[in-house]
Amino acid sequence: MLPEFKDIEKAARRIEGFAVKTPVLESPKLNAITGGRILIKAECLQRTGSFKFRGAWNMISKLDARKTPGGVVAYSSGNHAQGVAAAAQIKGLPALIVMPADTPMIKQENTKSYGAEVVTYDRATQSREDIAARYVKERHAVLVPPFEHADIIAGQGTAGLELAEEVAARGIGLDDVLVCCSGGGLTAGVALAMAELQPQALVHSVEPAGFDDYARSLKSGRIETNPRASGSICDALMSVAPGEMTFAVNRRLLGEGLVVSDAEAAEAVRFAFEVLKIVLEPGGAVALAAVLAGRIATKGKAIGVIASGGNCDPGLYARILTRAL
Amino acid sequence: MLPEFKDIEKAARRIEGFAVKTPVLESPKLNAITGGRILIKAECLQRTGSFKFRGAWNMISKLDARKTPGGVVAYSSGNHAQGVAAAAQIKGLPALIVMPADTPMIKQENTKSYGAEVVTYDRATQSREDIAARYVKERHAVLVPPFEHADIIAGQGTAGLELAEEVAARGIGLDDVLVCCSGGGLTAGVALAMAELQPQALVHSVEPAGFDDYARSLKSGRIETNPRASGSICDALMSVAPGEMTFAVNRRLLGEGLVVSDAEAAEAVRFAFEVLKIVLEPGGAVALAAVLAGRIATKGKAIGVIASGGNCDPGLYARILTRAL
Repeated sequence: MLPEFKDIEKAARRIEGFAVKTPVLESPKLNAITGGRILIKAECLQRTGSFKFRGAWNMISKLDARKTPGGVVAYSSGNHAQGVAAAAQIKGLPALIVMPADTPMIKQENTKSYGAEVVTYDRATQSREDIAARYVKERHAVLVPPFEHADIIAGQGTAGLELAEEVAARGIGLDDVLVCCSGGGLTAGVALAMAELQPQALVHSVEPAGFDDYARSLKSGRIETNPRASGSICDALMSVAPGEMTFAVNRRLLGEGLVVSDAEAAEAVRFAFEVLKIVLEPGGAVALAAVLAGRIATKGKAIGVIASGGNCDPGLYARILTRAL
Repeated sequence: MLPEFKDIEKAARRIEGFAVKTPVLESPKLNAITGGRILIKAECLQRTGSFKFRGAWNMISKLDARKTPGGVVAYSSGNHAQGVAAAAQIKGLPALIVMPADTPMIKQENTKSYGAEVVTYDRATQSREDIAARYVKERHAVLVPPFEHADIIAGQGTAGLELAEEVAARGIGLDDVLVCCSGGGLTAGVALAMAELQPQALVHSVEPAGFDDYARSLKSGRIETNPRASGSICDALMSVAPGEMTFAVNRRLLGEGLVVSDAEAAEAVRFAFEVLKIVLEPGGAVALAAVLAGRIATKGKAIGVIASGGNCDPGLYARILTRAL
């Protein structure tokens, strides 16, 4: 069953008081540079440092703790891991997270800090789906997928719903909305919210170069995969291909997919530090990067930008700031 | 004439649409650590990256541009400089800013980016007041003081007014409010707002060790000066002594002054990076540092924290993150 707008409305009620209603930031300097109004939904300020808590809590809060003593299992490069771990902790359920061994240490440590058990695997040679499936079976646990689930998509969509409501309260109609995109769950949720609340807005996925599976899939009309599984500073955006469910939603609702280089993502991280004063990880900065790099016309337009996460390793962040990458 | 609460209300109307109504952030993790509710007024997200734009615009917007062709002059270690420069640019007035030669480069560059002329001086041997006074006379310009002016104090007080209104909307009564303090303008403005809107709240100045002139002045009941004029990573908080006007307000309204070490300020900068995902400069992080370092009881309490600015040199920030200070 594909998620619908009413599922996002239900999710919004479910996350209230648990998720942070993140602010929509507007910078006079960024507006002056772009000649438009750039409305930044700062999901880095979300509980666990990214939007991922929204979907995780939307799904996990519905579980019956007595019927799922085995808890939850998830596989994730980091942000979904933290979202699931925090949601399970609130719900009082055990969580086991399967993470790539090259995940930034801050994401592994944070995941453990929410009480989760972390198991690592080799991105190049092992299948995270297989490992997770084995634990699900062994522990009679529930799998919380990173994007291929109606509850996850609807939960992430609450970020779009909040953005749409906030800009409407300021009397703004959005022309475009840019969303950092990996498996496409956040993008699909935001697109569903905008289709209902800001129907004139065109929603665009934004991906790092080399991991532009969504841009290519939207163009060809069928699911395309990435040639590589690692090799970008945008570690949060390296899923292999669009999900079938997210693509079914997104192919119907999205405009052209945008792509930025790692250097452009790093520049956006620096801009967020110097001007916006929010901490973004490279993967959480690609939508902002698309604006700064001129991938979309901004003059006279109102553009929504989802700044999706800020869980950046301090060492990497320091190298980006000092241009030592 | 000392500023009163009604001046803050007038200032709030004046800055509307020019200053950012900055969000009040609350972190489940920080609340869990402290056992209280910590409400962070994120003034790093303010126009020009600190609260200083509020007071500058409150004063400068009232000037008659035709009667002040010589524009404005200010002396500042950096954040006031940027606030004055941005306000003057909006008003269409020339601005000349006298800055210490050891001011972080980002603050000098940002000041120039708002169209201001920057003149540097040696903190150890020259008087910034004398240099500024000479330019004021030569150019028939208006001096915009960093804190000793009712319009400046009232403008900064709008940060306190917004915090008080926001926590009231969330049904919270504040027990304490911690304010990063240098000359005492922000502290005085916040204290005036709280005395009216959250009268049960005790307001505390927070200063870096070695620059605790306010803490000592509050204790002795008279204006005390600092032995040094430089030597802390909190470059925004190195004024020599409380202002006479700010002290007249603050001695009546403040609780005990709190003091944190540079290491504790750096730890708070890292916490803001890792958990809150906002960029704070060391001087803008001392109020948060006082909470994290246990300078005040937090268990079961609601504590307002003004995170006053985020204009940190990238190199210094990188060294703080990697503990290479």
